[in-house]
Amino acid sequence: MNSATLSINLTAIAENWSHLQRLSNSSVSTAAVVKANAYGLGIKPIAQHLFETGVRTFFVSTVDEAVDLRLILNHPVDIYYLNGYSTGDSSAIDDFRIMPVLNSLEQIKNFKNQTKGKKAAIQIDLGMNRLGIDEADIVKVKAESETFEINLLLGHLSSADDENAVQNKHQCDLFCKLAKSFQSTPKSLAATGGILLGKDYHFDITRPGIGIFGGYPLKEAANVIMIDLPVLQVKHIGKNVGIGYNHTFTTSSPRKIATVASGYADGLSRQLSNTGALYAGNIRCPILGRVSMDLITVDVTSLVTVPNSLSVVNSDHTIDELADQSSTIGYEILTSLGSRYKRVYHY
Amino acid sequence: MNSATLSINLTAIAENWSHLQRLSNSSVSTAAVVKANAYGLGIKPIAQHLFETGVRTFFVSTVDEAVDLRLILNHPVDIYYLNGYSTGDSSAIDDFRIMPVLNSLEQIKNFKNQTKGKKAAIQIDLGMNRLGIDEADIVKVKAESETFEINLLLGHLSSADDENAVQNKHQCDLFCKLAKSFQSTPKSLAATGGILLGKDYHFDITRPGIGIFGGYPLKEAANVIMIDLPVLQVKHIGKNVGIGYNHTFTTSSPRKIATVASGYADGLSRQLSNTGALYAGNIRCPILGRVSMDLITVDVTSLVTVPNSLSVVNSDHTIDELADQSSTIGYEILTSLGSRYKRVYHY
Repeated sequence: MNSATLSINLTAIAENWSHLQRLSNSSVSTAAVVKANAYGLGIKPIAQHLFETGVRTFFVSTVDEAVDLRLILNHPVDIYYLNGYSTGDSSAIDDFRIMPVLNSLEQIKNFKNQTKGKKAAIQIDLGMNRLGIDEADIVKVKAESETFEINLLLGHLSSADDENAVQNKHQCDLFCKLAKSFQSTPKSLAATGGILLGKDYHFDITRPGIGIFGGYPLKEAANVIMIDLPVLQVKHIGKNVGIGYNHTFTTSSPRKIATVASGYADGLSRQLSNTGALYAGNIRCPILGRVSMDLITVDVTSLVTVPNSLSVVNSDHTIDELADQSSTIGYEILTSLGSRYKRVYHY
Repeated sequence: MNSATLSINLTAIAENWSHLQRLSNSSVSTAAVVKANAYGLGIKPIAQHLFETGVRTFFVSTVDEAVDLRLILNHPVDIYYLNGYSTGDSSAIDDFRIMPVLNSLEQIKNFKNQTKGKKAAIQIDLGMNRLGIDEADIVKVKAESETFEINLLLGHLSSADDENAVQNKHQCDLFCKLAKSFQSTPKSLAATGGILLGKDYHFDITRPGIGIFGGYPLKEAANVIMIDLPVLQVKHIGKNVGIGYNHTFTTSSPRKIATVASGYADGLSRQLSNTGALYAGNIRCPILGRVSMDLITVDVTSLVTVPNSLSVVNSDHTIDELADQSSTIGYEILTSLGSRYKRVYHY
């Protein structure tokens, strides 16, 4: 059988987390963001391995993801969900010991009214203008927070992947200023990019995501995934021959073309059409013609022997390189990989 | 709890299939292509409903998909997998009554040697230069095929979504010419686009995919899916304020911004950043700033009351419109939708 394979290196994940942890002082706790099914790579094996590596605080996006994670990690770990409290969450909070990140005064009031003696985080909006409490509401939040325990005060940087962005220091200063109202509460500002900006950004808890999974902006990350696509068929074609849907590529000389099993249904974007490449070891095999749903055609003319599979991501050709070719970022590469791969976890 | 909802209309799927069936003469059998988890929409309910609607021939991509489909439809239906025979498939062929599409002389020989008394389809490459038997090998294929039963002869058009493409008639003529060597074998050339090119393209079996699921090139398709995203938070922001990662949008006047729960991890591409829109009924709410992994920010200034959810696909705003905004095609929209939606099937 010819299955595309997605290999996931749990040791590399642990190494990346440890690397990020070492960038902070020992007083700082390093959490892990494992939302969206651990960035598409599989929440169960990854959360278990991160727990074994020492992670004791996890962040996910939705209440459903938080419940799923608690079923995996029935241990004394903190699980926060970032999308905010909504009416109806209280039984999950009771039953699964999960904590919402409260993003507005209204959510704080509802949370207080609908749960009893529970803890939560609150998030201040520092300039994302997405989720979080506005600066103008901080005084009221402080008043509301007298009657329940805020476990954690969160901020989120808008531009941390750009070390030169003027927003970084401005938002960090704003966080410091607003955090003064919550002096005894632990504070968290930095995701992967924020960790790399320096210790002024680390506060009490950092919460890296993409860096753990081997992606930019952590340039020194260990590679976490390999993707290998089986070659289904090799053809020798002449010059002036069109390839694939709508013949968007026409040969200018005779070519040897390999068709591999994977396509955009496997998260290998149509943006790669006539742009991306697969690799035989380090030999580049350009994608010719359109990426289709289940198949990709590549030029293997330079290979004397065509191997049984070609790789699209390996230790030399990273998710960030694939992202560049796909006009996106490594994060979207990971979350798009889909369910059809044979997934192999290894140490 | 705030879940994004993906509603899938099984009646619309059946209507689209019936519409495509009515475009052919009654002597033509209309199959269904349900590869890639029924174009991302869920193989089990969709295959069952298509069977109840009258479909008796199904095509998928991989041997694994074929096995999964047989476990769903343990009925007298033909199941073909398009990616070709590979050594190791024979036990699945035996156990699950599935049939490969043989794409080369080598595959035919291996299939004959490794299976006993089984049937298969063969595919001729008419100009995709992807999978399929080359014209030069047809005589040898004919000789090999004397000793096993070819159930079906397949061809695939490269440019059927463009009714003006010169390739259409050329490839259809080539199929007719090469098919003469297999006079008693049923023949199949047309997918959705080919069906729309006219009855000369229909032969014995058509095999629509995207049209069943409501997408271009079947312009008259009934809409199959609706996607609704819950509003998590609404903010009033001033002018000259940046929104989202790297502040790629800056307001030029005060705005009301809603943040909804979904992002590129749910298949709503980063290409939609500052380009796409959500809808409140028919009122367009432009996406402002970058689409992030789990969240999208939209301009709801024009809404007097912000509803609990905004739609991204509905009966007025189709997958093809979303595809245009995402710089792709409806097929990739469907196969990218991901696993985090609450999926609701209805009639």
